[in-house]
Amino acid sequence: MNEPCTSLAAGTVREAALAARSAADRLATTTGAQRDAALTAVAARLTDRVPDVLAANEKDLAAARAGGLPDAVLDRLTLGAAQIEALAAMVRDLADRPDPLGEVTHGAVMPSGLEVRQIRTPIGVVGMIYEGRPNVTVDAGVLCLKSGNAALLRGSSTARHTNAALIDAMREGIAGAGLPPDALQAVPGTTHASVHELMSLTGLVDVLIPRGGRELIRTTVRESAVPVIETGVGNCHVYVDEHADLDMALSILLNAKTQRPSVCNAAESLLVHAAVAPAFLPRALAALAGRNVTVHGDRRVRAYDPAVVAATDEDWGREYLSLDIAAAVVDSMEAAVNHIRLHGSGHTEAIVTDSQAAARRFVAALDTAVVAVNASTRLADGAELGLGTELGISTQKLHARGPMGLTALTTTKYVLTGDGHIRGASPAMPGLSCDVLEGPDPGAR
Amino acid sequence: MNEPCTSLAAGTVREAALAARSAADRLATTTGAQRDAALTAVAARLTDRVPDVLAANEKDLAAARAGGLPDAVLDRLTLGAAQIEALAAMVRDLADRPDPLGEVTHGAVMPSGLEVRQIRTPIGVVGMIYEGRPNVTVDAGVLCLKSGNAALLRGSSTARHTNAALIDAMREGIAGAGLPPDALQAVPGTTHASVHELMSLTGLVDVLIPRGGRELIRTTVRESAVPVIETGVGNCHVYVDEHADLDMALSILLNAKTQRPSVCNAAESLLVHAAVAPAFLPRALAALAGRNVTVHGDRRVRAYDPAVVAATDEDWGREYLSLDIAAAVVDSMEAAVNHIRLHGSGHTEAIVTDSQAAARRFVAALDTAVVAVNASTRLADGAELGLGTELGISTQKLHARGPMGLTALTTTKYVLTGDGHIRGASPAMPGLSCDVLEGPDPGAR
Repeated sequence: MNEPCTSLAAGTVREAALAARSAADRLATTTGAQRDAALTAVAARLTDRVPDVLAANEKDLAAARAGGLPDAVLDRLTLGAAQIEALAAMVRDLADRPDPLGEVTHGAVMPSGLEVRQIRTPIGVVGMIYEGRPNVTVDAGVLCLKSGNAALLRGSSTARHTNAALIDAMREGIAGAGLPPDALQAVPGTTHASVHELMSLTGLVDVLIPRGGRELIRTTVRESAVPVIETGVGNCHVYVDEHADLDMALSILLNAKTQRPSVCNAAESLLVHAAVAPAFLPRALAALAGRNVTVHGDRRVRAYDPAVVAATDEDWGREYLSLDIAAAVVDSMEAAVNHIRLHGSGHTEAIVTDSQAAARRFVAALDTAVVAVNASTRLADGAELGLGTELGISTQKLHARGPMGLTALTTTKYVLTGDGHIRGASPAMPGLSCDVLEGPDPGAR
Repeated sequence: MNEPCTSLAAGTVREAALAARSAADRLATTTGAQRDAALTAVAARLTDRVPDVLAANEKDLAAARAGGLPDAVLDRLTLGAAQIEALAAMVRDLADRPDPLGEVTHGAVMPSGLEVRQIRTPIGVVGMIYEGRPNVTVDAGVLCLKSGNAALLRGSSTARHTNAALIDAMREGIAGAGLPPDALQAVPGTTHASVHELMSLTGLVDVLIPRGGRELIRTTVRESAVPVIETGVGNCHVYVDEHADLDMALSILLNAKTQRPSVCNAAESLLVHAAVAPAFLPRALAALAGRNVTVHGDRRVRAYDPAVVAATDEDWGREYLSLDIAAAVVDSMEAAVNHIRLHGSGHTEAIVTDSQAAARRFVAALDTAVVAVNASTRLADGAELGLGTELGISTQKLHARGPMGLTALTTTKYVLTGDGHIRGASPAMPGLSCDVLEGPDPGAR
């Protein structure tokens, strides 16, 4: 473990965070053109350093093989030259996109003449904890750079040499473009203690984004003192209303379940209104069977097909991520809404209906990041919605909800401009100020 | 403690949160007119119940006196009939304001014809932990009601009878207007265990907002698994640049420090550029002394006036909330920025300068919720900025930053409307989807 690899041995987590803070301060005053030039340089270095990255990847693969890790892990770990070139192309594409910073999100001139602007700024230092493939290292790093944030990356220990080689290449690009390389760092250490230290650095680290399985996300949410952006566990439902066009319902169901079953916006549950169950379920069950989908149904669904497996209570809350789907017949739209409230994960829920009234009620009643009316749950995706490169799908309610574009990596700053404006010189706008909420001023008596 | 007072004895924290969740589901489908009618009814009940609230307040005051609590606590605890009437008037005013819900914050039609709308919705269940005066009980409750959220209120135990009486009155108003009274509940129990249970209820409670001293806020941030909106500790600086109009600088300094010293947007530190220190500091120190302000200065400030107290390292980070100010001379704007980066709390920083270049650099360099150019830090206030009734001033970066209006109590929901739209039928917009970030689909092989 004593390779001369800077990203593998860089002092304490706190030292890395302090260096990131300083780099973030520098990034905050860069122009979009400077950050785009750094992205272009990063893309060039990734291309130059393909052999080094492949060698590092081979080292990780050898260790994983020696450790007897399963083929699926080896497969996720493997990074080929073509994939690295594809990552470099993505980085060049990102450089061409509009700068998310500087947008005036609110502006007004107050009656006193005070000018008020709320402008989009970087968050600062973003910590990323992920289990996934090494390509997340590049994705996360360049999304942060584009949005003016310093990144502290903590990937899987099985991918550490690969990640370190990717980070070194990106740091060289950043430094070559005249920006501080500490804008992009691996979190030092490979133990859980270092992750816990990262979670405790309030004031130095502004946000943590866990990407990975349910357990990683839960642990981070539970243990982090640093604010967390929670990305999505999905238990998406397709509800076929009594007023549904059944051809449309079938097309949406098959797309939502089978077009890509392993992702969070795939459908995991089907609810069918009792009035259309006799017409819809025989066709739907046959079509699902034809695509090798195992249906876990309630008693009323099973009545249509003996091949349907009996659903247990657990099935209603499962995120299968496979060719399985839970299915139930419901007696009303309200029953469907109640089922989803009980079992949904707040990700994406779809209704198929031709009734305006039903669609309005379904949309209003469900507290979820995305509601799809006569559209597949699979469309809940940043690229599909025109948000540009996606950071993930947030199922939390604060800051960002649903598919997250680059703006999820920004915050805002109020800028007040006057010519000597002071408080009390002119009456405030109607409304209760913080002062009133806190009651009379003890210091004023 | 066995009074027949529903708000004091309402089962477990989890039961209260479940009831709040159910009430929130109901509130989510109300119209603005229904919520405003409930606010009007709440105002009427507060007026009707003045004698009950005063009796409850007398009970709390008697217990506080018997417990030997200091006069300042008794003073904060005391609620008079005029204050209750003022609260009722505030509630009626809130009913007249625009509904924060339903706003379309983003909308587009994709090339496929899929309609995309992002609409403003309630957060759901809001927990409020506060130490302050009993009036916060009403403020927090009605702001949540206006924005369609259910509220779980946990006030100071010294104010529990008063808070319970206020909550009972408000619940009667809500129920009388046909909305669920459990939209507004006291958190059961008076022990720390009940607060900890509240902090653990992820999935049931959507956000916690602590209002009070630094220690309350820190503890909540550190220990809560539920997301927290952090409200402001302020160490606001006034920086007098070398290009400042010194009359303006003096007016802003005096306003920022002395107009209301006990609040978070009062100035706690003064930084003066060395080039104008000889002209500015003698005037400023005399004027501050004339308003009974104690100046804690560095060596260079003390050279102007022997009455200046020697600042210790701690003074640079203090939130005095009193007629005290730390003061230092700096050799450049960069030195001022570095001082603020080191000691600031990310609340509000002011620069007084006639230089466009200096103002631009100051605004860009500081990572803070509010920057004031030639304006008092005291103007960092929701009512002053036209945001309506203020919830507090957020010094965190996610969700809401700076003065928070009602929209801070909202989240958004994406609504996708199609006529059978599915994924893969037409090419997505440019950009990297979640699918690509996660790599190829193992389920697809």
